[in-house]
Amino acid sequence: MGKINLNDDRFFEPDLDTRSVARELYNEVKSLPIISPHGHVDPEILSKNKNFSNPAELLIIPDHYIFRMFYSQGISLESLGILSIDGTYIEKDPRDIWKIFCKNYFLFSGTPTKMWLSYVFKEVFGIDEHPNENNAMVIYDHIQKLLLEERFRPRSIFDKFNIETLCTTESADDQLVHHRAIKESSWQGNVITAFRPDSVMNIESKDWLNEIGKLSKASKITIDSYKSFISAIEDRRQFFKEMGATSTDQGVETPFTQRISDQQADEIFQRALQGESNKNDQRIFIGHMLMEMARMSTDDGLIMQIHAGSLRNHNDVIFRKFGPDKGADIPLTTEYTKNLRPLLNEFGNNCDFSLIIFTLDESVYSRELAPLAGHYPSMKLGPPWWFHDSIEGMKRFRKRATETAGIYNTVGFNDDTRAFLSIPARHDLCRRVDSNFLAEQVVRHVLDMDEAVKINHDLAYNLVKKSYKL
Amino acid sequence: MGKINLNDDRFFEPDLDTRSVARELYNEVKSLPIISPHGHVDPEILSKNKNFSNPAELLIIPDHYIFRMFYSQGISLESLGILSIDGTYIEKDPRDIWKIFCKNYFLFSGTPTKMWLSYVFKEVFGIDEHPNENNAMVIYDHIQKLLLEERFRPRSIFDKFNIETLCTTESADDQLVHHRAIKESSWQGNVITAFRPDSVMNIESKDWLNEIGKLSKASKITIDSYKSFISAIEDRRQFFKEMGATSTDQGVETPFTQRISDQQADEIFQRALQGESNKNDQRIFIGHMLMEMARMSTDDGLIMQIHAGSLRNHNDVIFRKFGPDKGADIPLTTEYTKNLRPLLNEFGNNCDFSLIIFTLDESVYSRELAPLAGHYPSMKLGPPWWFHDSIEGMKRFRKRATETAGIYNTVGFNDDTRAFLSIPARHDLCRRVDSNFLAEQVVRHVLDMDEAVKINHDLAYNLVKKSYKL
Amino acid sequence: MGKINLNDDRFFEPDLDTRSVARELYNEVKSLPIISPHGHVDPEILSKNKNFSNPAELLIIPDHYIFRMFYSQGISLESLGILSIDGTYIEKDPRDIWKIFCKNYFLFSGTPTKMWLSYVFKEVFGIDEHPNENNAMVIYDHIQKLLLEERFRPRSIFDKFNIETLCTTESADDQLVHHRAIKESSWQGNVITAFRPDSVMNIESKDWLNEIGKLSKASKITIDSYKSFISAIEDRRQFFKEMGATSTDQGVETPFTQRISDQQADEIFQRALQGESNKNDQRIFIGHMLMEMARMSTDDGLIMQIHAGSLRNHNDVIFRKFGPDKGADIPLTTEYTKNLRPLLNEFGNNCDFSLIIFTLDESVYSRELAPLAGHYPSMKLGPPWWFHDSIEGMKRFRKRATETAGIYNTVGFNDDTRAFLSIPARHDLCRRVDSNFLAEQVVRHVLDMDEAVKINHDLAYNLVKKSYKL
Repeated sequence: MGKINLNDDRFFEPDLDTRSVARELYNEVKSLPIISPHGHVDPEILSKNKNFSNPAELLIIPDHYIFRMFYSQGISLESLGILSIDGTYIEKDPRDIWKIFCKNYFLFSGTPTKMWLSYVFKEVFGIDEHPNENNAMVIYDHIQKLLLEERFRPRSIFDKFNIETLCTTESADDQLVHHRAIKESSWQGNVITAFRPDSVMNIESKDWLNEIGKLSKASKITIDSYKSFISAIEDRRQFFKEMGATSTDQGVETPFTQRISDQQADEIFQRALQGESNKNDQRIFIGHMLMEMARMSTDDGLIMQIHAGSLRNHNDVIFRKFGPDKGADIPLTTEYTKNLRPLLNEFGNNCDFSLIIFTLDESVYSRELAPLAGHYPSMKLGPPWWFHDSIEGMKRFRKRATETAGIYNTVGFNDDTRAFLSIPARHDLCRRVDSNFLAEQVVRHVLDMDEAVKINHDLAYNLVKKSYKL
Repeated sequence: MGKINLNDDRFFEPDLDTRSVARELYNEVKSLPIISPHGHVDPEILSKNKNFSNPAELLIIPDHYIFRMFYSQGISLESLGILSIDGTYIEKDPRDIWKIFCKNYFLFSGTPTKMWLSYVFKEVFGIDEHPNENNAMVIYDHIQKLLLEERFRPRSIFDKFNIETLCTTESADDQLVHHRAIKESSWQGNVITAFRPDSVMNIESKDWLNEIGKLSKASKITIDSYKSFISAIEDRRQFFKEMGATSTDQGVETPFTQRISDQQADEIFQRALQGESNKNDQRIFIGHMLMEMARMSTDDGLIMQIHAGSLRNHNDVIFRKFGPDKGADIPLTTEYTKNLRPLLNEFGNNCDFSLIIFTLDESVYSRELAPLAGHYPSMKLGPPWWFHDSIEGMKRFRKRATETAGIYNTVGFNDDTRAFLSIPARHDLCRRVDSNFLAEQVVRHVLDMDEAVKINHDLAYNLVKKSYKL
Repeated sequence: MGKINLNDDRFFEPDLDTRSVARELYNEVKSLPIISPHGHVDPEILSKNKNFSNPAELLIIPDHYIFRMFYSQGISLESLGILSIDGTYIEKDPRDIWKIFCKNYFLFSGTPTKMWLSYVFKEVFGIDEHPNENNAMVIYDHIQKLLLEERFRPRSIFDKFNIETLCTTESADDQLVHHRAIKESSWQGNVITAFRPDSVMNIESKDWLNEIGKLSKASKITIDSYKSFISAIEDRRQFFKEMGATSTDQGVETPFTQRISDQQADEIFQRALQGESNKNDQRIFIGHMLMEMARMSTDDGLIMQIHAGSLRNHNDVIFRKFGPDKGADIPLTTEYTKNLRPLLNEFGNNCDFSLIIFTLDESVYSRELAPLAGHYPSMKLGPPWWFHDSIEGMKRFRKRATETAGIYNTVGFNDDTRAFLSIPARHDLCRRVDSNFLAEQVVRHVLDMDEAVKINHDLAYNLVKKSYKL
């Protein structure tokens, strides 16, 4: 009772024929190197390579998947040690935080968080029992002891995880000191960045002027006009590219795209510099900047990613107290057919340009995204994102997208995680779900076995390497 | 041929492993008492405890699930004895109505109506054959004879059904005479009410002034201003609570919420008193009243329910001839992320407040509702409602909501029925579908068996008791 | 390796019980005659009955399902021999086109295109291997040789396919010369038309005046007013009906309906005659004309079809170079509850009127379309259309629509194809998926076997015959 069960056939269909084919397919890809082409691991972890401090700081405090679920059940973020920005007292003792985590661990039943954590506990830390109120401190002490060992330092874990490439995400002004340090070190791990200029695009944000200042400093370009802003962006893209980046990313509330004239863009930009821009200005400016980012990608070859449709910081109370990324970013209905049309008409027929689209609105898989990706040469579908990076979420994606977009207009898996230790758990889950999906098709005589073997290898490794130019 | 087949394994996956686990899980919950925390049974049935008159009046005439399907196939509502409000002649002979029902019974193939009716015929009335043109009168006479027996009087049926609590729904001005009569009787059945003030909120409705008059009379408060209206609402909530209510309910076309000032509210209210309000006034007023109802719930502890997204009385012809609730309420696209934001920002972090949300727009399960319920401590997800209270509807709900919201941000089952005799059929269907869902997770090694047993018991009994404070 | 596998159990669930029931159900319907009540085969093929020229012109060039997928992977339409309208040079050698097709055939893995083509290659041409780079020319020569034979001429194929009725689609001005020629020939094949007046409804289109001219000529009515336009439409409907048509069809971006006065309609019409109408005029005019088409259908008994929700010619570059129907029609969010309300209120209660609705927005199946069809006597649901005419698409339709709309508010299968040779492949796929869907219900004890047998026969043959008055 309470044993962690990493059954060899987990996540496969119960039917024995499908299960047997799934197992065969999975066994061929399970040990392939991990390519993580998009995510949010802090590169400092790998440049400094310091031991992780304790189980709570490693596994709970940085993981909004975990604390949002606790919060939804009435457990305060303060008690979980989540850093407040308004000076509210928060729990400091990692052991007390760990106790709450273990006591309420049952809340994750049926969620991907539990599946990832089970993998981490068992495969990474050799723990046999699910956490609960009684074993909380035994598990804590066990993990704490391991974290002091050399083999549990970040680079050792990275190597043990068989990660071929890990891509992080940095803002436009980042000097990439950690990436440089890693590159210049004797360690061979391949850690690259992706260019994410959201903070300098959100002209309505209170922080925007400050962000422009940082961009100006980083690019050594005085930014006093739309034109100089574009130059600074181009400069930073160039720097990121030289540092190994192969992609950019943008998080937008809507994927609205529209070209405006440089003069109109400058008018909006000047208003923003005066602190006078409004929500509509921002919408138009970002719609235009998506066009410009596509133009730059066509020029410099960086893959363009768009993550659309999240209303960030839905909960004002939490935002004021704890800041962003506290599990209160909530998806919105998201329209792609009309919104992406200007961008796809201008750049979508250009085979030098590559656009990867992510969504939180699953109703668009079959209605909008698969038909678009099944037509435009430059557009590909990113894997299920965030809440949908789960067994059922991945199944819905494959079942709704494949018949129209095919396999080769998708790009393999992204783990998109901040939780470094969960990387192999997430890739393993995806490899299992994909193997299972293909096995179902084999048993139903939709795919031949040799076809399924090839596709599975492409999904687990080749497609991501090709799509992200890695 | 035509035998009613209530197979022990009905509604379970065909695969033998899943089926065996589902059966085991189901057997542990099938006999648990029924808690019906939200529905529309007429309490007069149980206060008067008179014998039901005849099969047509018992099973067909009150059930819009049944007559809407017949109407969609060209069978007139007149011929089914549905009471007209414009004096149109309707069929009076219950035997003729019953004949039409039996002859066209095949139209329910594959619908939940057939599954519920099969249960009622077999388990409640001991009938072995599905109705058809030939056996119509035999079945009629059989049921008619039973209805005269003591053991088929409403309270006997209630007791036999093992109903622990039945919650009905009454409008704001209701004096709850039947609830009082039941309470004061020697019968032990627990029948409580829920407060549903829709008719006094719909300021644009032609009946509104009349409804305000009834509210005024019931509360003994002269309602001539927004302020006195609020007092009257608070007064009635208090009365309902004293009579045992633990919840309120509101049916709204959109879950739009927005606080306006008391002065603005009063201006709208005064216009309404003059019969001058319009669709936009109503939208703003209801948006504000949802905020106020949340405030009151925070104060008095009544659970707040919102059923959103139905365009009522879509068919004008039918509405003019037969009135509301004739199977012509049609769902709409419904937005929750932006619409509920004001309410959740003001009350959603308050653990004393509890909000249960229902939807007819399944695309929001994974996109909006599960992420919201997986964050805000006060928000929970109601079960699949109305058209989605079905095998496939429940499966979609569990598969789309669980991975993000978990199990414990849901509230168990509501039968939401007017059809008293169908209550155990509906709960049994849900217990089977939940057992089957959990069995699939066990066989796929997503859940351990002991975990599934506990969750299944929570879904069938504990969660509803806790969520509705019963 | 690479063998075409048309396994007897293909597309059925893997579980042996379901598979066995599915096989039994399928065997009862697999040889029923094909009724194709809606599609786009060119009737000239059957009136002229000439040998098909070559494999590329037969299978690739007319099939946008095929070339859109190739285009999405960077293969130019020019290289596939797609006729340009701007004089761009295109590939002329069918053998070179065929080579590209075979080399890239793997792109169809998991798509319905592959399932249909496998059937065509194996069942129609007796080919045992999937096309690839190596066998391309062998297959080409094999097919080319067969195409010269008498038994591969169109009428012979039609007869061999066991097509009882084939319905094509013609524009309002069509003289139906091919239909007349077929009717007057000694050949017994039943090929009828459907009336599709889109080109004369799209008043904003540049071609509209030209189309009105053609309509005027065909109807011998001078069209200088809304009134004469209506007369011309009525005249053509009458002609189509006399020629055997039983249905009309309209493709609209939105199913918005609204009656305007004849005077308003004439004002819009006069503006259009002056070349001065705009997007809003068109929306209002088409919304009104849907009402008028419903009125005419109520009068003349033609079944009314609406295919809504496609943004045609999304890709301007391709549209300017190659014209319409190049795989760049992309679905949109589509609203039916409010949009169809005026039409359904005016005509939906009339049992003489029959409206069949198609959608590309699957989120409306359970939310809007099934509830509407489950209420209004005149409204029925068309089968999954276009991108959703696929295994998973059909499953989603049945699982989401059946519980609310029942079986008898649906109308059986449409192949909707331009690809003559794929007709039996498409019907066979649907019969398999329906058999499998019903088998699942039998094994889960939702349906009895005799019920499933009857429903399956209705879905494969009776419903389409009755719904389209064939």
